[in-house]
Amino acid sequence: MKDDTTIFGIRAVIEAINSGETIDKVFIQKGLQGNLFAELDQLIRKENINASYVPVEKLNRITRKNHQGVIAHISPISYWNIEELVASTFESGKTPLFLLLDQLSDVRNFGAIIRTAECTGVSGIIVQKKGGAPVNGDTVKTSAGAIFKIPICKVDHIKDAMFYMQSSGIKVIAATEKADDTIYKVDLKDPCAIIMGSEGKGISPSVLKLVDEQAKLPILGEIQSLNVSVACGAFLYEAVRQRS
Amino acid sequence: MKDDTTIFGIRAVIEAINSGETIDKVFIQKGLQGNLFAELDQLIRKENINASYVPVEKLNRITRKNHQGVIAHISPISYWNIEELVASTFESGKTPLFLLLDQLSDVRNFGAIIRTAECTGVSGIIVQKKGGAPVNGDTVKTSAGAIFKIPICKVDHIKDAMFYMQSSGIKVIAATEKADDTIYKVDLKDPCAIIMGSEGKGISPSVLKLVDEQAKLPILGEIQSLNVSVACGAFLYEAVRQRS
Repeated sequence: MKDDTTIFGIRAVIEAINSGETIDKVFIQKGLQGNLFAELDQLIRKENINASYVPVEKLNRITRKNHQGVIAHISPISYWNIEELVASTFESGKTPLFLLLDQLSDVRNFGAIIRTAECTGVSGIIVQKKGGAPVNGDTVKTSAGAIFKIPICKVDHIKDAMFYMQSSGIKVIAATEKADDTIYKVDLKDPCAIIMGSEGKGISPSVLKLVDEQAKLPILGEIQSLNVSVACGAFLYEAVRQRS
Repeated sequence: MKDDTTIFGIRAVIEAINSGETIDKVFIQKGLQGNLFAELDQLIRKENINASYVPVEKLNRITRKNHQGVIAHISPISYWNIEELVASTFESGKTPLFLLLDQLSDVRNFGAIIRTAECTGVSGIIVQKKGGAPVNGDTVKTSAGAIFKIPICKVDHIKDAMFYMQSSGIKVIAATEKADDTIYKVDLKDPCAIIMGSEGKGISPSVLKLVDEQAKLPILGEIQSLNVSVACGAFLYEAVRQRS
């Protein structure tokens, strides 16, 4: 049973996963048991799918149909593998410019960032499987369709992407107001990946420790914070300027 | 009768206007008559207040109280006079950087732009009295409070502000994808005012004719448009870079 981008029923979700559908998230009723559920649970672990165990009321709010305790949102897009993305970017002859999002949570910001990334020639966007804004209809809408034009990767942890980038000769630069240098002093002409943090907390301290460089936007006023999609736009356009 | 930032009742609205409250917009029931209404109507014309004539159902949706056919939204901020703003900016010794918004309609974009303008040291924002996003609680929230830290002017028509700027030696620059030059080729170090257009239509053709210069952001992807608050941020940070 498939209702636009939602699939419900244990067997239907198992089949969707096995047939290669890209699952954005699975909601599972707390305390669910039985052989069929055990099969699904094993598959979710094996494929490392983002799953939440929720009260039945939450499932009933999503659909009135017979969900049997399991609802999956399928993604409107297919995700790239990070190895493929990096390889194809180098092969294209373009100087790589990647964007890493560390648990950005607002769908409208996510959509606006995807739109800006596509307009500034970003080679691909990398997000975490868990903890960030979902890829759903609102993301598609606020991205103005750009989500279909730019590769998006999901990784287990953003650090996995950082290590892979660094081992491929790509400099990882954190966009953080804690930086000493402004973006105008940081070289964005080399192959690089820019990390943007979440709206509330910025970049996680454990992620910040591992970056190659940090850069900030100068702040001339009293309000010490910018909207993350605006800040991301200013970073990406500085990269465009330096590379032009 | 005053309910947070909403005033209702003909006499109450007349008194609010006479006592100097800054009215953002007045909703008036279509076909309203009587002496008291005639007095209000005259006052609205005299003070050039933004008024809409609407069916009674619209008023009933705003409040269940006895509105007598008239509801006014008062502004959470006081507006500056453009002459005062320009004079005080020159007196401060700062090189003026103004932002003109030509009928931007989305409150969240408006709030994000105010926030960015405050962070980039913009001297003041000029909007039209009619046709743009309102200054309300959502604007305050999405501006992260920046709206209380930056002067905002309302003018009858954005062209009035342009003429005044130009006669004061301030260059008016349109942010438009129709420009030949990118922002990196346009000098933003001189006193200048940047005009941003509306989400759907950009800058009005009649306004575009009167600008001193036009500038665009380079677009490297297929999606040929940026979110207006992101584009505005990229423009303002280019001004910050050139001036630093």
